Amino acid sequence: MKKNKKNLNASILIIGNEILSGRTQDLNVSFLSNWLNLKCGISVVEVRIIPDIEKTIIQNILDLSKKFNYVFTTGGIGPTHDDITAQTVSKAFKVKYEYHKEAFMILEKYYGKKQFNRGRKKMAKMPKGSSLIYNPSSAAPGFKIKNVFCLPGVPSILKSMIDNCAIYLKKGPITLNKMISLETVESNISKELGQIQKKFKKFVDIGSYPFFRMGKIGVSIVLRSKRKKQIDLCVSRLKILINRKKIKIFKKI
Amino acid sequence: MKKNKKNLNASILIIGNEILSGRTQDLNVSFLSNWLNLKCGISVVEVRIIPDIEKTIIQNILDLSKKFNYVFTTGGIGPTHDDITAQTVSKAFKVKYEYHKEAFMILEKYYGKKQFNRGRKKMAKMPKGSSLIYNPSSAAPGFKIKNVFCLPGVPSILKSMIDNCAIYLKKGPITLNKMISLETVESNISKELGQIQKKFKKFVDIGSYPFFRMGKIGVSIVLRSKRKKQIDLCVSRLKILINRKKIKIFKKI
Repeated sequence: MKKNKKNLNASILIIGNEILSGRTQDLNVSFLSNWLNLKCGISVVEVRIIPDIEKTIIQNILDLSKKFNYVFTTGGIGPTHDDITAQTVSKAFKVKYEYHKEAFMILEKYYGKKQFNRGRKKMAKMPKGSSLIYNPSSAAPGFKIKNVFCLPGVPSILKSMIDNCAIYLKKGPITLNKMISLETVESNISKELGQIQKKFKKFVDIGSYPFFRMGKIGVSIVLRSKRKKQIDLCVSRLKILINRKKIKIFKKI
Repeated sequence: MKKNKKNLNASILIIGNEILSGRTQDLNVSFLSNWLNLKCGISVVEVRIIPDIEKTIIQNILDLSKKFNYVFTTGGIGPTHDDITAQTVSKAFKVKYEYHKEAFMILEKYYGKKQFNRGRKKMAKMPKGSSLIYNPSSAAPGFKIKNVFCLPGVPSILKSMIDNCAIYLKKGPITLNKMISLETVESNISKELGQIQKKFKKFVDIGSYPFFRMGKIGVSIVLRSKRKKQIDLCVSRLKILINRKKIKIFKKI
């Protein structure tokens, strides 16, 4: 996977020991992926989850920012000792780690001069040349430098900031999704589904996902494409297969 | 992060477009991380989520299996065209992709000779030399080759198979966890917490995680260490800080 001018892509870098230890269930990957894919037409093509270790963060920032159009990091921009994303991104890009004037003003106003202590001031420090990503829930802004967007780890705060990332992004054609859930098992349709995928391999991505819910066994077929006509053609082929095999549909396309 | 004889480590490779598209919320990372960290004393130090693309899977398998003691993959071992993990791992390790005799027998018995169609037979094919990871929920086994463990993507099935991985793993000293949740904000304790982390940096990892739950704002402090004595000493230091700042404890250590 490489940077791509036509089909924009992105990677997500989750920074945080709490996710790797299993203590915290990550919720940011699915939120960011949905937003990027469905709202911006930017495909998320790789996610990495790494610990709060400077060297590891630097390696990954440099690697991913070279490989993909955009990189979104989550975590590590708070006031405590384990929040090292901002200084580490500065090191990665060899720029000064310093107070951002506007961020400083925002935070000073939010906390009041007396309550604006060392930990809170730390949240105004970021790589020189960063643009702010405003935070309507808890003031402390995220930042964007080059093609890297640094967001907080708390999902509710991240969500409230996401629209403020949009101004910095180019948009691509949106990927369309169609899903059909069938009362069958994968191995009943795998051969024919493989043939349909082969026929549409250039424009449609067909995924097959078995599920076991409330005592029912089924398969969800997901079609993804940037071209509506191709997806419609693929749906027609799928419907022929479904009729021929007399498969019951749980949920219609 | 490198392979480590004393402190065993692992990485998780989630293979699946459905996670990257945001359609499916991954649940396997937190389950596997908890199991590896708490039951086996194996630290999970990197997670990657990648698409169902042969070249990408090969690169990541080779990279991660070189870097870490163990690699756990999830997804892509079912019967459909988008399930390419088994043949791709074979290519990565340059071994034949072939029927595993015992897996073939298990699946033939499970489905019955008449219902044992092409798609189902595919699930008995894996890299030559693989050891089986038995599947008590839906028969189709996972496999282990070299230091790579290939598991399915459906969380309930993966969970049912996990104990069958244990026989192939060396165990390390378990990482102990202690958590204390405080009625405060991070910036109120960030300076002192940083000092305590500095003092204990060799043996204790201190994480600080703000939370907003049911109208309450707080911070969870998580101490992680392989040495009980060090964690106890660190707790004592933390308690002095909590008393001095007159912070209310939500949840006791």
